[in-house]
Amino acid sequence: MPEAAETRTRGPYRTGVRRREQLIGIAMDVFGEHGFAGGSLRTIAEQAGVNHATLIQHFGSKEGLLTAVLEEWDRRTVENGLIDVSGLDYFRRLPEVMAAHRDNRGLLELFTTIAAEASSPAHPGHAFITQRYTSNLATLAGHLQEAVEAGDIVHLSPAQIEIEVRLFTAVMDGMGLQWLLDPETDIHASVTTYVERAIAAWGGR
Amino acid sequence: MPEAAETRTRGPYRTGVRRREQLIGIAMDVFGEHGFAGGSLRTIAEQAGVNHATLIQHFGSKEGLLTAVLEEWDRRTVENGLIDVSGLDYFRRLPEVMAAHRDNRGLLELFTTIAAEASSPAHPGHAFITQRYTSNLATLAGHLQEAVEAGDIVHLSPAQIEIEVRLFTAVMDGMGLQWLLDPETDIHASVTTYVERAIAAWGGR
Repeated sequence: MPEAAETRTRGPYRTGVRRREQLIGIAMDVFGEHGFAGGSLRTIAEQAGVNHATLIQHFGSKEGLLTAVLEEWDRRTVENGLIDVSGLDYFRRLPEVMAAHRDNRGLLELFTTIAAEASSPAHPGHAFITQRYTSNLATLAGHLQEAVEAGDIVHLSPAQIEIEVRLFTAVMDGMGLQWLLDPETDIHASVTTYVERAIAAWGGR
Repeated sequence: MPEAAETRTRGPYRTGVRRREQLIGIAMDVFGEHGFAGGSLRTIAEQAGVNHATLIQHFGSKEGLLTAVLEEWDRRTVENGLIDVSGLDYFRRLPEVMAAHRDNRGLLELFTTIAAEASSPAHPGHAFITQRYTSNLATLAGHLQEAVEAGDIVHLSPAQIEIEVRLFTAVMDGMGLQWLLDPETDIHASVTTYVERAIAAWGGR
């Protein structure tokens, strides 16, 4: 068992980082296929050739492993085009960001399944997912407020901004789901139509 | 065991219908809480006080039971305001229809979870859910085409109609999910904003 050897003579820092990345990659696959509730730490450990204790050592708990997976998803999403854009440009970049998920089907499947599963307050990931939505809605609201303050769009009340960022989030979640169900779905064209329509409604230029 | 009695002396037709409705109600609760993959026929049978064979007798299979549950959901949705509306009025009624889901949280949770789970082609409900999306998109497209032909909105190409009905579906799915995650979400206001904006973009009157 490679596990025993690793536990006895823990490698240098870089080895630990690589092992952690490998475990996150396997967890993505397993959660992506079975969901968070259905994907067990035992399956992940078996596929990685490590034991349960190693997973706990790296991530603390199943929720900790999910957090690491979703952080990796966020990192890739930001790398896919949301660095150095703000205000209206942030919204204009969203069709590309969504289209890039086509290269990460497993991750999109994972996130879509977990968000839906965790809509039940009894789900162990409920607090985590609700916090994540709150945080993402706040990010979108910040960019919209910035566009208002820059004079790029008309004034929007806090209640209007809330509606706008929820609709953007709904369009992205919903189009992601439709693309998962039918890979012929033109996610880029749909999100572009939505972005242009929203910016026009805001009197954007 | 009430089960044995029922099997020996099957009641009149009305009793069978009531029993079927009762089983569907319990299946809704169990699938709503555990998802389709996680909700077992055994749990449903136990909660209903019947045995596995009775479930199979009524529904044929787990997929058959899910079909019955989703048909019941469709029936309630239509009763909630989509009878006798067509063309643009169909779209104008959607905020109310979505808002009515607030009274059926379990069903919305069930549908949202199953649609996400079944996005994986390996899921036993995948074919069923993709067929259901195809059918619902066609219904929306029919109403939009009707509005075009009535001269209520500008001409839309088939490709544009496809984008429009996918965006409507995304907004409804996505806003449903956000309301499940945060019951403070004003689903009626958000969907109303979307409907009015879309109709304005179509040059609707």
